[in-house]
Parts: sequence; structure tokens; C-alpha cells
Amino acid sequence: MPDQRIPNPMPLPRADQMQLDRFLDRLKRDAELEIGYPVAFDFDYGALTPFLSFSLNNAGDPFMPMTYLLNSHEFEQEVVAFFADLARAPDGDWWGYVTNGSTEGNLYGMYLARELLPDGIVYFSQDSHYSVGKNLHFLNMRHIMIRSQPNGEIDYDDLRETLRIRRDAPPIIFANIGTTMKEARDDILVIRSILDDLAIESRYVHCDAALCGGYAALLDPPPAWDFEDGADSIAISGHKFIGSPMPCGIALARRGHVDRIGHSVAYIGSLDTTISGSRNGFTPLLLWYAIRSLGIEGLRRRIEESLAVAAYAVQRFEDIGIAAWRNPQALTVVFPQPPQSVCDKWQLATAAGYSHIICMPHVRREQIDSLIQDIEQAGGAAS
Amino acid sequence: MPDQRIPNPMPLPRADQMQLDRFLDRLKRDAELEIGYPVAFDFDYGALTPFLSFSLNNAGDPFMPMTYLLNSHEFEQEVVAFFADLARAPDGDWWGYVTNGSTEGNLYGMYLARELLPDGIVYFSQDSHYSVGKNLHFLNMRHIMIRSQPNGEIDYDDLRETLRIRRDAPPIIFANIGTTMKEARDDILVIRSILDDLAIESRYVHCDAALCGGYAALLDPPPAWDFEDGADSIAISGHKFIGSPMPCGIALARRGHVDRIGHSVAYIGSLDTTISGSRNGFTPLLLWYAIRSLGIEGLRRRIEESLAVAAYAVQRFEDIGIAAWRNPQALTVVFPQPPQSVCDKWQLATAAGYSHIICMPHVRREQIDSLIQDIEQAGGAAS
Repeated sequence: MPDQRIPNPMPLPRADQMQLDRFLDRLKRDAELEIGYPVAFDFDYGALTPFLSFSLNNAGDPFMPMTYLLNSHEFEQEVVAFFADLARAPDGDWWGYVTNGSTEGNLYGMYLARELLPDGIVYFSQDSHYSVGKNLHFLNMRHIMIRSQPNGEIDYDDLRETLRIRRDAPPIIFANIGTTMKEARDDILVIRSILDDLAIESRYVHCDAALCGGYAALLDPPPAWDFEDGADSIAISGHKFIGSPMPCGIALARRGHVDRIGHSVAYIGSLDTTISGSRNGFTPLLLWYAIRSLGIEGLRRRIEESLAVAAYAVQRFEDIGIAAWRNPQALTVVFPQPPQSVCDKWQLATAAGYSHIICMPHVRREQIDSLIQDIEQAGGAAS
Repeated sequence: MPDQRIPNPMPLPRADQMQLDRFLDRLKRDAELEIGYPVAFDFDYGALTPFLSFSLNNAGDPFMPMTYLLNSHEFEQEVVAFFADLARAPDGDWWGYVTNGSTEGNLYGMYLARELLPDGIVYFSQDSHYSVGKNLHFLNMRHIMIRSQPNGEIDYDDLRETLRIRRDAPPIIFANIGTTMKEARDDILVIRSILDDLAIESRYVHCDAALCGGYAALLDPPPAWDFEDGADSIAISGHKFIGSPMPCGIALARRGHVDRIGHSVAYIGSLDTTISGSRNGFTPLLLWYAIRSLGIEGLRRRIEESLAVAAYAVQRFEDIGIAAWRNPQALTVVFPQPPQSVCDKWQLATAAGYSHIICMPHVRREQIDSLIQDIEQAGGAAS
């Protein structure tokens, strides 16, 4: 008989099991009211539970062999290739990996930019995610915040003027492909034309496509967001539009940029090309399962139906006299902040007097109806 | 009927399902031969699979309320408190969170140190993990590598001499509580006495306890590694000794340090205290399940039995005339690199002519016997 040494974790003590049961009940209730955050959970990854019996670890570069064999690099490669294709990455000149989420993907993009343009200044709009300032502080990078337009998009005039008086320092553009509150998309073709116009050749464009990267390529017309439009690196979230039980994402970059970093990292004693050491090997399986089972056509239906629900939501708000709006082809519906009781019940993120719902693929019309009813009963928008 | 909008991911296409099945078969074979890396997988977290139906996200500070309710902060708090207690954190003066692994925990510690001592120099031994140089490059921190002793421990004389001639810059000590190759532990009480001796009062000590943090407190006598011994922050891995299907860890720090960073981050536009934005809400459940079901006594038996297997392994190597050794109370057994065929079969990490096995809780004596047999058949150690 094999000396099976240590028993698997024993059953939980009774009080702990009860705590866990209560938590599951609470999650079921709360999930039913979750329409305010950019996370989809209309998934069923049950087929992947057997893989939770291993300590999957994708340490290191997903495209290089490793000694530790309990990795899912082969699936990670396919996931990265799928998104590189969606983002029209240049043939044979791209690289990427599955991250723990878009903070890591954005950190990676800014790190690449810093290594390539050490004297660069980062420009980003005031509607950017709160993690951007933190990332730049981390990396010790100079940065300037640019005004936003009312719809959340970067103010191109302010950007142009700010760039014009600093033409000596290479600009690093941090573009939002879907801002956090309003899902506004900075147009990197417009930004590129500004840079061209100012004859600024040494530059870097990173796209924070955490929110829209999962479907931007499927919109008609697509926004200007990808490698062909001029991006040098892109961060996409996996737990948002695709949906995943835990945060994950995809970092993509031009291969040439990464190779130059490879050297730089080698110099400090490592050929490692990712940010984390040990890396999650389960999330690549989740993303792989989603894209293989849905396919491009499934994803296309998914975004079309989500857009229809968003349009429905705007209409329902208008029906009760509340001025809700959304950016073109956006899943995010913005409206004046409802009374606090409604915000609490529906987990609504709120900033500067506005709230939003995000019509992710799990959001149903009946939930919209129920929200509208709650707002009406609470007396409409908060004054 | 509710308008259930979009079907859950459909069954996989046949070729994809076959790829997934092949992968599962391969993992089962490879897991049987995995004794070379510091990851335990004698776990059964099957009771937690219902939680994979939600998009759990622990964004932000685990000890603060958040709008998004699908979080496991209550479990994360208990996990952090458990490890804070193991690490003898000062009453009421600690803080922490569950990370994606110890690269993040170490990055967090170095970030805290940089904010507190902006002119500091980081000292770390040449046996430190490869990610340390990368982290410091990221954070733009000055650093000096210190010689190691043959057993992998930092060379205290070299450290003392190097500190002595740079007493104008506050030192930031990056101590290893279990180096990657030899599981050597830097003694932070000795380091503290060196700093005291040199009258250096402005200082910071971070412990990379990725490997040993899960059991250091349970050793008799325990090594000098925790807050009472002088640590300012500690990174512990969850997927190593505890065991988890995906990388995770615990970052711990003195509360007072974190509060000062809190201000600094607020200044750049955020009250967020962690590195990632969206954070994994499933891993805190895994760690909580492990510590609740095993309990301190279960963990103690776990380390005792693992140490016994490590002792058994050294003995078996000696039986066939190979000079294997391990540091005191270490699970890592170091021996001259065997022939390549053996390294490949058993996934053995190798550096500078040495290989190691790490007698994690899943490693069985019969696996040791089988490895020994393979080495004998291949003609002993590589010349």
C-alpha cells in the first residue's frame, strides 16, 4: 500500500461549515442584484473542476518550455493568440501572457514604455482608472493628467496643447478603451494624428482595454483601439466581458518591444518576461474554455444582445423621465444618482452625482425593470 | 419565463474536448513525478466548487467595506489574521491581504520600504529569488547584492562590511526565510544586531518567507523570521506549504507603515492599499478552508511528517554514496546534479551543478525510493 502520508483537509468544523453555507446563500442573493459592475457571470466552467486537483503554475514565459510540468502553457498560448488576432497584432511580431487582471496588464504596458523611453512623460485622462496613478507612482514615471470631455473621452485639444509645449520629452499615451464610469473610448487614431502633426516620432501608445477589449473588435464599426490603429501594448480583462470566477486578463505587446525588455531583465539576472513569478495556470484554462465553446460567432451574439439590453435600459429610464445616456455602442448606462437605498440594493458605483449600470452578458431585462421600479418607488433620482 | 439571454458556454467542439482530456491525463502522470518544486497538492478543495459560479472579486482593502458584494473579504480577514498570529504581529498594529503569490508580497514589502525610506539601499543575498532584482528594477530602488555562505545563507560579514561603509543611506534588508535552491534562512536577529552595532536606527527589514512562512512558526526552535524578531513586512506563499490549485500568498506589514502609504496613495488619487485592483476572491476561500480544516495541530503534524520524509531522503542518498544534505529543519534536500534523463523525468530544478527535491506534504517515501533507483540505474551523480 502506498504510504499516503497526510490526509486531505478534513471536513470543516461545524461552525465553519455553517459560515461557508451562509456565505453561499448570501452570494446567490447578491448575484441576482449585481448589475452595476463590469463582470459577467453567465458561465458554467464545471467541466474544468478536475483541474483544481493540481497545483497549476505557469511561471515564466508562456512560449518557452519550463521544467515544472504542471503548467497550462499550451492553453495560454492559444488564448493569447486568439486575443492578438482580435487586436490585429502584426504577424509574427506580438507577444503576451495571461495576467491576474488589467492592473497587471497596464503595469506591464507602462513598464515596457518606461524601459523603451526612460525620459518619457505619461499622459492620461482624468477619467482613467484609479490604479493608473498608483502604477505610475510605483514605476517612478513622470505623468500629466489631461482633461476629459463630458462623455468621459480624453480632451484632444488639451492633449494637443500639453504635448505641444513638451516636445522635448517622448510622450507615453495611456489611452482608455472604455473608461470606468462612462465607458468612453479614447480614439488612438486621433491621438496618432496629433502626434504626427506635432512631428513627434518617439512615442508609445498603451491601451487600457480592460473593459472593451473583449468585444471592441466585434463592434461595427470598431473603435480605434488595436495594434493596426497604432497601439504598442494592450491590456484586456478576462473576467469582465468573457467572464471568469476570478480576475484575469491578457497583456499584449509588440514582440520587438518585449525583446528589448528581455535583455534588460536578463541584465538584472533573469530571462523572465512577465511581472509575476509563479502564475495562475487555471485562468488560462477558463479563458480557453470560454473562447472555444463560444467561438467568434458566440461572442458576437453575446455583444449584440448586451448592446440591445443597454439600449432597452436607456429607453426604460427615459420612460420614467430620467435622463440616462450611454456612449455609442457602450454597455454602460449613466444616470443621475438614485436615492441611497437603491444604490445599496443594486450595488451601484457612484461618482460625482452619477451612477451607472453595466449591461454585461448576464444582465436581464427583468432586472432593469425591477431597478426602474425601485427608482420610481423611491421617488426618482436623488435631488 | 425569465429572459435567460445567453446560453452558458456550450459544450466544447470535439477536438477541443479531446485536447482537454489529453491534458488531464498528462497532468495525472506528471503530478506523480513532481517532487522538485515547493508546491503541495495533497488537497481536496472539492467543497468549494460551488463558489466558482460567481465572479468573486476582493478589490480594495480587505478590512474596508465595498459596494460590490460578491467578495470574500470576511474570509480574507480571517486568513490574514491567522498568519499575522503565526508571525507574531504586534497586537492591533498589523495589516495584510491575500496576494497572487510572493512576487506580489515581496513587491509590496519593497514598495512600503521605498515610501518610508526613499533614499534607502536594498541589501539581499546572491541566493535570493530571481524576481527580487526584477522587483527592485521596477521600483527604481538602489540595491547591493551580498555574498552568500555555502549553505545559501547571507554572509553576515560581507553584509556588515558593506553596511559599515554606507552608513549615510538607510538600509532596507531583504531577508530570505528559505532560499529557492537550498532553503537557507537569513537570521534577522543576527542582522538586527549588526544594525544595532553600527548604530543604524533608520532601517527596514522585509522577510521573503514565500517558502518557510507557512511553517516557520511551527518549527522547534523557530528560526528568527517574524515581527517580534524585527520584521517590518513579510511575504508568505499560500500555494507552497499550505497548497492551492493556483498561486496565492499573504502579504503582512506593520499597520503603521501601511497607514503612511495610505496617505501617499490617497495623494495620487486613491485610498487603495493593495497592488492589484481587482483581486482574486477564490484564493482566500481556499486558504481559509485549509487552515480551518487542518487547524494548528494538523499543520504541525504536516510539517513534522514532511521533515521526516526529508531526513529519509538524505539517508537514502547517503545509502548509495551520494553526498546529499539539507539545512537544519529544511524540507529541501540538495545533491549533485544527476544525469539529465533523471532531471527531466523528475522535473528537478538545477543550478551550479546541484539539484534539489523539496519534501512538500504530498511527497511520499516510495517516490524517494523510485528517484534513488533511477539515479543508481543511470550511474549515480553526473560527473
